[in-house]
Amino acid sequence: MTTRSRFGASTMDDSDTTLDDLKRAVREFRDRREWEQFHTPKNLSMAIAIEAAELMEEFLWLRPDETPRRTDGGDSAARIAEELADILIYALGFANSVELDVTGAVLDKLAKNAEKYPEAKCRGFSSWLDSEKGEGA
Amino acid sequence: MTTRSRFGASTMDDSDTTLDDLKRAVREFRDRREWEQFHTPKNLSMAIAIEAAELMEEFLWLRPDETPRRTDGGDSAARIAEELADILIYALGFANSVELDVTGAVLDKLAKNAEKYPEAKCRGFSSWLDSEKGEGA
Amino acid sequence: MTTRSRFGASTMDDSDTTLDDLKRAVREFRDRREWEQFHTPKNLSMAIAIEAAELMEEFLWLRPDETPRRTDGGDSAARIAEELADILIYALGFANSVELDVTGAVLDKLAKNAEKYPEAKCRGFSSWLDSEKGEGA
Amino acid sequence: MTTRSRFGASTMDDSDTTLDDLKRAVREFRDRREWEQFHTPKNLSMAIAIEAAELMEEFLWLRPDETPRRTDGGDSAARIAEELADILIYALGFANSVELDVTGAVLDKLAKNAEKYPEAKCRGFSSWLDSEKGEGA
Repeated sequence: MTTRSRFGASTMDDSDTTLDDLKRAVREFRDRREWEQFHTPKNLSMAIAIEAAELMEEFLWLRPDETPRRTDGGDSAARIAEELADILIYALGFANSVELDVTGAVLDKLAKNAEKYPEAKCRGFSSWLDSEKGEGA
Repeated sequence: MTTRSRFGASTMDDSDTTLDDLKRAVREFRDRREWEQFHTPKNLSMAIAIEAAELMEEFLWLRPDETPRRTDGGDSAARIAEELADILIYALGFANSVELDVTGAVLDKLAKNAEKYPEAKCRGFSSWLDSEKGEGA
Repeated sequence: MTTRSRFGASTMDDSDTTLDDLKRAVREFRDRREWEQFHTPKNLSMAIAIEAAELMEEFLWLRPDETPRRTDGGDSAARIAEELADILIYALGFANSVELDVTGAVLDKLAKNAEKYPEAKCRGFSSWLDSEKGEGA
Repeated sequence: MTTRSRFGASTMDDSDTTLDDLKRAVREFRDRREWEQFHTPKNLSMAIAIEAAELMEEFLWLRPDETPRRTDGGDSAARIAEELADILIYALGFANSVELDVTGAVLDKLAKNAEKYPEAKCRGFSSWLDSEKGEGA
């Protein structure tokens, strides 16, 4: 899907946007407003959790097969996109604040999970999901 | 920072990894284990919130100027990287499940925030942060 | 259900324990360790959210009709009781720190919800649940 | 503090209200609307986390010594009371759904914490706080 970017004339979407591109956009937004003073890792960790809760609200009271619906007539898909964007903006902001390469962190964690959940044993079995840590990716 | 990727021979880091690259890695991990049945948007939204809480734990009981420390001698920086990776893995997994282009969602949200928090008015002023929604990026 | 209390010889359970009794137990635990300095409202709000996420972990990846199960053989009911206790300990700790009468707050909120969700209209209808605020109690 | 209860003519506050009194009020609210079908433990655990995040929002972007302030002119103390009430309503609702005596659970957990954090050793020392589980009550 191609999405028009308001940050410039070029069209940017997940196929051609790097993690650094998005980290830069988030960093510039913060710096132009001199908000780095507020964006401590502690505050950013709280912000991520707050936005994650807002995303969960879309699915509260529903059974797995129900699509979210809102009584206020709002556009559920648009809200969900916005809430996921908020989570990512703060997560990338956190990565900026601690100078973390997220690609390396994500690939390392997937590799660690791959050893913990070998494909041959895990296929389709939910009992292999480590609910202790909530990690089933 | 260059990070060696275990998913292939090429070196991948935030400078050369696209959002699609990471979304694909997360999707393949899920599909090889036939875990799509468990990765409903509702469950994934819960997973993001759970991992966000684990990241917050690193900063609990601390004042802003204190660095996280753990009594068990563990490596705080390594844990933080892993917890942020978990958040991103589930967030990208969520994007996969609802077929959302995250670049477009993030850039659109930053543009919306830019109108809400004009640079000239917001520089350094925390009062402009909309704590109602927790949005101050 | 009668529960033996380790805080004294009397048997205490929900039928004969007041909110002040529990708030006092939580307050004394904090004061004997001189932990009030760490138990700021901000930190306590984080702690509540962290414990709430631990409770959610018990139910992740499950469909509504499945009972929680853990791969490590642990006692799910005991863990759930402990996690709910953690939530209440921090919530009552928060009430102590801001000197809030929780009975009044809870009854006032139920009264407010009763006006928002009149019994005659709401019986059985999930569409009346305000997912905006997650309030459907 | 004495609070007038809308649930009856008697004045109820934390000094004379039992846990069962509040659990009953929450249960009756649910049953009169036939909402038990939606109030599964999984959904209630999500609701607690969502409300916990709303409470945290009051403290986001602030340093420990700052009191919460809102740009919309709202009454911060009233909102905080309402958000804590929401947390307790869902936590007590959860206790109802799993038939848990919360007094016993809280006192047992405090006793467990007392052994883990002996007074003599812990007085004032934040290093004794188990940030692994976020348990420092």
